[in-house]
Amino acid sequence: TLQHIFKEIFKASLELQEDDHRKALLVSRKKQSENTIVTIKGETVGDGIQRVIAGPCSVESYDQVNEVAKAIKKQGLKFLRGGAYKPRTSPYDFQGLGEEGLKILKQIGDELDLAVISEIVTPNDIEKALDYIDVIQIGARNMQNFELLKAAGSVNKPVLLKRGLSATIEEFINAAEYIISNGNGQIMLCERGIRTYEKATRNTLDISAVPILKKETHLPVAVDVTHSTGRRDLLLPTAKAALAIGADIVMAEVHPDPAVALSDSAQQMDIEQFEHFMDELRASGLYKDVTKSSAV
Amino acid sequence: TLQHIFKEIFKASLELQEDDHRKALLVSRKKQSENTIVTIKGETVGDGIQRVIAGPCSVESYDQVNEVAKAIKKQGLKFLRGGAYKPRTSPYDFQGLGEEGLKILKQIGDELDLAVISEIVTPNDIEKALDYIDVIQIGARNMQNFELLKAAGSVNKPVLLKRGLSATIEEFINAAEYIISNGNGQIMLCERGIRTYEKATRNTLDISAVPILKKETHLPVAVDVTHSTGRRDLLLPTAKAALAIGADIVMAEVHPDPAVALSDSAQQMDIEQFEHFMDELRASGLYKDVTKSSAV
Amino acid sequence: TLQHIFKEIFKASLELQEDDHRKALLVSRKKQSENTIVTIKGETVGDGIQRVIAGPCSVESYDQVNEVAKAIKKQGLKFLRGGAYKPRTSPYDFQGLGEEGLKILKQIGDELDLAVISEIVTPNDIEKALDYIDVIQIGARNMQNFELLKAAGSVNKPVLLKRGLSATIEEFINAAEYIISNGNGQIMLCERGIRTYEKATRNTLDISAVPILKKETHLPVAVDVTHSTGRRDLLLPTAKAALAIGADIVMAEVHPDPAVALSDSAQQMDIEQFEHFMDELRASGLYKDVTKSSAV
Amino acid sequence: TLQHIFKEIFKASLELQEDDHRKALLVSRKKQSENTIVTIKGETVGDGIQRVIAGPCSVESYDQVNEVAKAIKKQGLKFLRGGAYKPRTSPYDFQGLGEEGLKILKQIGDELDLAVISEIVTPNDIEKALDYIDVIQIGARNMQNFELLKAAGSVNKPVLLKRGLSATIEEFINAAEYIISNGNGQIMLCERGIRTYEKATRNTLDISAVPILKKETHLPVAVDVTHSTGRRDLLLPTAKAALAIGADIVMAEVHPDPAVALSDSAQQMDIEQFEHFMDELRASGLYKDVTKSSAV
Repeated sequence: TLQHIFKEIFKASLELQEDDHRKALLVSRKKQSENTIVTIKGETVGDGIQRVIAGPCSVESYDQVNEVAKAIKKQGLKFLRGGAYKPRTSPYDFQGLGEEGLKILKQIGDELDLAVISEIVTPNDIEKALDYIDVIQIGARNMQNFELLKAAGSVNKPVLLKRGLSATIEEFINAAEYIISNGNGQIMLCERGIRTYEKATRNTLDISAVPILKKETHLPVAVDVTHSTGRRDLLLPTAKAALAIGADIVMAEVHPDPAVALSDSAQQMDIEQFEHFMDELRASGLYKDVTKSSAV
Repeated sequence: TLQHIFKEIFKASLELQEDDHRKALLVSRKKQSENTIVTIKGETVGDGIQRVIAGPCSVESYDQVNEVAKAIKKQGLKFLRGGAYKPRTSPYDFQGLGEEGLKILKQIGDELDLAVISEIVTPNDIEKALDYIDVIQIGARNMQNFELLKAAGSVNKPVLLKRGLSATIEEFINAAEYIISNGNGQIMLCERGIRTYEKATRNTLDISAVPILKKETHLPVAVDVTHSTGRRDLLLPTAKAALAIGADIVMAEVHPDPAVALSDSAQQMDIEQFEHFMDELRASGLYKDVTKSSAV
Repeated sequence: TLQHIFKEIFKASLELQEDDHRKALLVSRKKQSENTIVTIKGETVGDGIQRVIAGPCSVESYDQVNEVAKAIKKQGLKFLRGGAYKPRTSPYDFQGLGEEGLKILKQIGDELDLAVISEIVTPNDIEKALDYIDVIQIGARNMQNFELLKAAGSVNKPVLLKRGLSATIEEFINAAEYIISNGNGQIMLCERGIRTYEKATRNTLDISAVPILKKETHLPVAVDVTHSTGRRDLLLPTAKAALAIGADIVMAEVHPDPAVALSDSAQQMDIEQFEHFMDELRASGLYKDVTKSSAV
Repeated sequence: TLQHIFKEIFKASLELQEDDHRKALLVSRKKQSENTIVTIKGETVGDGIQRVIAGPCSVESYDQVNEVAKAIKKQGLKFLRGGAYKPRTSPYDFQGLGEEGLKILKQIGDELDLAVISEIVTPNDIEKALDYIDVIQIGARNMQNFELLKAAGSVNKPVLLKRGLSATIEEFINAAEYIISNGNGQIMLCERGIRTYEKATRNTLDISAVPILKKETHLPVAVDVTHSTGRRDLLLPTAKAALAIGADIVMAEVHPDPAVALSDSAQQMDIEQFEHFMDELRASGLYKDVTKSSAV
């Protein structure tokens, strides 16, 4: 019928239009050949200098975060992470301190001049987050929470977007496109391990994703060595691999006393382990940080 | 130190409490041995009678939905599905008609006395949805969008919860617990295929999940044969398997003209194929529907 | 260079030839539209009548197998399985009785007029197996042991080929092609679950593989409900799903005393459970066996 | 019954014995704390010096292998790989030159004083291989071909064992145990990517497996960057990651003219690309080879 033909033409033209968009995703290297450099509280990401983000899984108290923050500061690092809203498998697990946690992060960020990063889990909290944190994290479970992505895309604040538990690289890139297409191009992508049959590690770190994301997009790429491995003994070797393959950021969890952590106690480093971790990264010659460069 | 010991005791007692909750999840058979029966516009689900939910992937127009709705009515079925808010991988793909789509569903539901089911993707829309639809669907990508689960748990409306793309059965059950623990026990679980290495089908239908979910929980269990297989030629055989293994609901997509559908055109049945599908299900002797029972 | 061009032409012609073969795989429906019917000791498989294969995981003794065999006989069944060569993850696990096991199977097969099925794990044992067993099983770990496939293809004996742990359907079909292209077309394909991230079951039963294999090839298709689920409580529901979706064979493990079984003790049925299993399959109306047909 | 009790005791004692073996696997670090050093034609592997193995996917002709071998020699490398027996998905794909291929490898190995590595696919060929090659490779599809493992374990020749397509690390370690428990401890383990849902790469390189295998066993560990990624553009970055994380060996495929290669043409480097690959590895400062050390 004529109607069917018109519908087919309409659909075809719609698809053509979508195709055009896809060929020229705003996050793609084809659209922008030079690297996006995200500046956070005066510190750059994506310009070849490699950064370390550290901090506890959950914000539990001022003292707990402060102890970690001072260790971060002592290492000459700038980025402090901490979870205030915790997406947990069970509704009966510790769900985070919420806004109280954001306040603790802000206070310590101000006191020590650190940039603070925390996960936001619902569009309604994006506006509120702007007052407290320097980087909005969107977690693996929310990578395809498109309303959240759109909300994060409509504010002027850097976003750290984590890859979904079993997201393909293509889906990951398209999730970033939801943010940039709403106006916010300050995006960092974070590989955090994918779900596979192998249970020796919590997830399987897809290290190849780093060069692929660097090639396909112009965005900085982070590797979360804590969630990808889920094992304290693998943080250092996987961090080395991440630096060697060209990640812009290594992200790791540090807690003053992991044994009493309210979440992820098996995989966080204590302060001493963190200092050893940083020493070893520097000794390896793999870590291209500004301190070292300027020292030479 | 003493402080460390106190923290350990605090954490241990917190864990004990969580443990208690876990052992007695509200959705578990241990907590409630008899089946939960969900009543939707006078039709029951979960009492041993098997139901079919059908409808287009996306609501595109009144005429399109109406044509499918009449076919459903003709089969003596009660449940019409249709997507108004479409979570799509790319921001440039058709995103659904939004509230306009819900209005079309409501109008047709009223006209033909059908119960309508549609996906809600953000907590803010839950209240609005109450005016239009009879069942709130929570999609695979939002299975661990915990704020959405909590919002759905705080209203008095049946919820169809789909399993996440790579969610374990344990995570799936815990996602349902987020809903019930907020007060809403009218939950139906929907197996819709999991992500595996095999690409002959869009996802891999985890048929064993049905008896496991029926054993572990007291909730009705649906099988979405469309999204699990992604292949029109597999809808009928997998629907038979779903009925044989004891699913309460079979869910399948029907479009008046799949070739011009704005989403999922490769996997939807047209009206004629749908009639054949229903005829074959009835002829197989597997489909325990009320019509048949009363006929005998 | 000219040499390069010649090599490219040579390679292209080689690929064209391979392409031709692929388009017309000997196992494909395109090559042979009617079903292959395999006849084993007078019993047919693949002609629409559904069969049950049962027996212990491992052959442990004459008495053990005999007890199961008598239960099988009592059910009017014909097929007895039992492992003589056991591929085990650890070299220190029980490796099977070897040829001694084959002898026990043969003796019992002769005494009770049952067809016996056993796995062969190395090309050198194929010839020997001909004297003892009625069906050569090739296990999941050997699905791409191409030398074994070729050896099995060069004898005149039915072969039950199991899908590899993470084999695609395409690889599975090609493995069968290795057998048929060596001259032996008496092949039965067996879906036995694939390896996924989900650990609620030992493997994930890919039930959709059954209609795909029936459509793509002309070979009989079996479902091994024991290895796919690894759970005794799921044997009956998955067997029903397998029968409903059109499997030619259901395969399940039975042991007189599973608690003392030398392998797979958690997933085998005892004799009483097996009788209940068969009763329920018959009561379900799903099981199209000859006895029932002739009885009607 | 008494018999049942005796059987349970027998089984329990059997399991205890197996347990003992498992706790002290011969390949485990618990059994031997120092690294196993495998010496091949005078070159060591496992002593901290990192090695590169290169060569074509398939042996196609004397000239083809010779051209690659000379490039390897020019780089000061010692190890030449090449497939003579090719396990291929389809029986109609090029299956390798067989013994003819082994002869070519031997001749070139002799002429250029290179150690040659080739895959053996059936127990019957192990003895023959001893005359031609310096390292027996056991491929991914044969990782649980236990008869082949036993045969490789009973000769005095180094073995390179590849991880199965979807083998767990535990299964991989146990496969090595099959070899060592038959008397041959000259084993190198090779991570070559695992099968996951992600299709941007041929397989997913499980980089974390390297430190786990180094920790759990005393064996040298290789990373095959070609088969894990299946992409020429990822060979260099993944090789860097492998060196940084502590792999003893990097393995990559090189072909004089990949476009006309009879297998894997999309992922092999040509000579020029290989030279660039080696230059970049050396320039990265990651590659701990003996030449460099002695030069300093």
